[in-house]
Amino acid sequence: MQIAKVRGTVVSTHKTRSLTGVKLLLVQYIDAQGELMPKYEVAGDTVGAGINEWVLVSRGGAARKESGHEERPLDAMVVGIIDTITVDNRQLYSKKDEYRMSQ
Amino acid sequence: MQIAKVRGTVVSTHKTRSLTGVKLLLVQYIDAQGELMPKYEVAGDTVGAGINEWVLVSRGGAARKESGHEERPLDAMVVGIIDTITVDNRQLYSKKDEYRMSQ
Amino acid sequence: MQIAKVRGTVVSTHKTRSLTGVKLLLVQYIDAQGELMPKYEVAGDTVGAGINEWVLVSRGGAARKESGHEERPLDAMVVGIIDTITVDNRQLYSKKDEYRMSQ
Amino acid sequence: MQIAKVRGTVVSTHKTRSLTGVKLLLVQYIDAQGELMPKYEVAGDTVGAGINEWVLVSRGGAARKESGHEERPLDAMVVGIIDTITVDNRQLYSKKDEYRMSQ
Amino acid sequence: MQIAKVRGTVVSTHKTRSLTGVKLLLVQYIDAQGELMPKYEVAGDTVGAGINEWVLVSRGGAARKESGHEERPLDAMVVGIIDTITVDNRQLYSKKDEYRMSQ
Repeated sequence: MQIAKVRGTVVSTHKTRSLTGVKLLLVQYIDAQGELMPKYEVAGDTVGAGINEWVLVSRGGAARKESGHEERPLDAMVVGIIDTITVDNRQLYSKKDEYRMSQ
Repeated sequence: MQIAKVRGTVVSTHKTRSLTGVKLLLVQYIDAQGELMPKYEVAGDTVGAGINEWVLVSRGGAARKESGHEERPLDAMVVGIIDTITVDNRQLYSKKDEYRMSQ
Repeated sequence: MQIAKVRGTVVSTHKTRSLTGVKLLLVQYIDAQGELMPKYEVAGDTVGAGINEWVLVSRGGAARKESGHEERPLDAMVVGIIDTITVDNRQLYSKKDEYRMSQ
Repeated sequence: MQIAKVRGTVVSTHKTRSLTGVKLLLVQYIDAQGELMPKYEVAGDTVGAGINEWVLVSRGGAARKESGHEERPLDAMVVGIIDTITVDNRQLYSKKDEYRMSQ
Repeated sequence: MQIAKVRGTVVSTHKTRSLTGVKLLLVQYIDAQGELMPKYEVAGDTVGAGINEWVLVSRGGAARKESGHEERPLDAMVVGIIDTITVDNRQLYSKKDEYRMSQ
């Protein structure tokens, strides 16, 4: 999986029927230093991720493993909201601190 | 999925039989700032997307999830026409404005 | 799918048994401006594509959708010979003109 | 598979149910000269890899081949801890020496 | 498939059980001009490829098409030893000449 930040939403009313009811998030990838990269994904969401949250994104067939999504043409899915990332025993990211900082 | 703009069409009369009747669009990828990238895809289309429309493109096995396409050698499919893209509570793209601008 | 130009052939006599009888083409990718890119693929061929022809290449599981190829370890397949590519209502490529020019 | 170094861990309490109990490692890819690359993966772990160990990472459907992981939305998995890498009859990496050096 | 040169081997004793008995080769990709690229793969081998031989590497699900490997977490496999590569009617590589040259 890749680490990404929820940046926004994509709305498509005229789409393939099997995508009906799927919330589509625009998530932007984050590198191993915690910086935003240009690369993004439009991903389905089943965990209720909100704007600016850091999430885990699964790609390929993994995106269709969620119950009820097996037959949908999804190639990217938000599968978890990240609490903490620890690299070399140092905390790279903490959701709690993120919220504290933004208040 | 990735965001792409429909740029044109590809015609192939001598092709594998299972591709008969599939409309092939040349779509060019768009980055998270809304700019065209060099990368493109020749994708099947089941939503009737037109030239210059912004669309969602699914790749890999997702491209064969559409009913009737399970056994076709497709690795990219247009699965939706985009109405709006919102990033950081700002509208990056709106199909309605696009049309208004181009009139 | 990606657009590619047939550049040559690869011969392997000592290979996995399931590849027996599969013709392997070396195809080089072409960008959205019609220029050769460094990227290439060694792809199976079921449409009888010839040297210098522009073709459509499917990758991943799509390469094994052709009847009789389901169990072969192929990850790229030539699935069509391109007649025309039209971008922004301008013809980027025409097989007919290509042949006329090279005579 | 790619060679990667275990750099840390990712914790997500609010995630898709099928990921419950899966330990998620942040692994950073290593190039053919043995140097760290910017590219990383958040991968499941079933071999009990520890921080700084060099591991083998499988991606795509291969990540779900481990017994009990078939239905989990994983697209990357640590499948082995590397003992030695030999290139051109020269040892590029040895786990034993790595430990000796770091003492 | 991609063209690669066998550069070495990777040994992992502590690995997922289903990889037991699989020989793992470190193969480095070769571009369309016949030059080594930085990109590599750790691939399974069922054709008995030796150091310095040029081989064909299949990736993704194709790597698990070999009989007996369907349930192994492999995402890359050496599927053939290359005899000749011909580009634009010129021989880019010949295994026979390679051996003659190196004697």
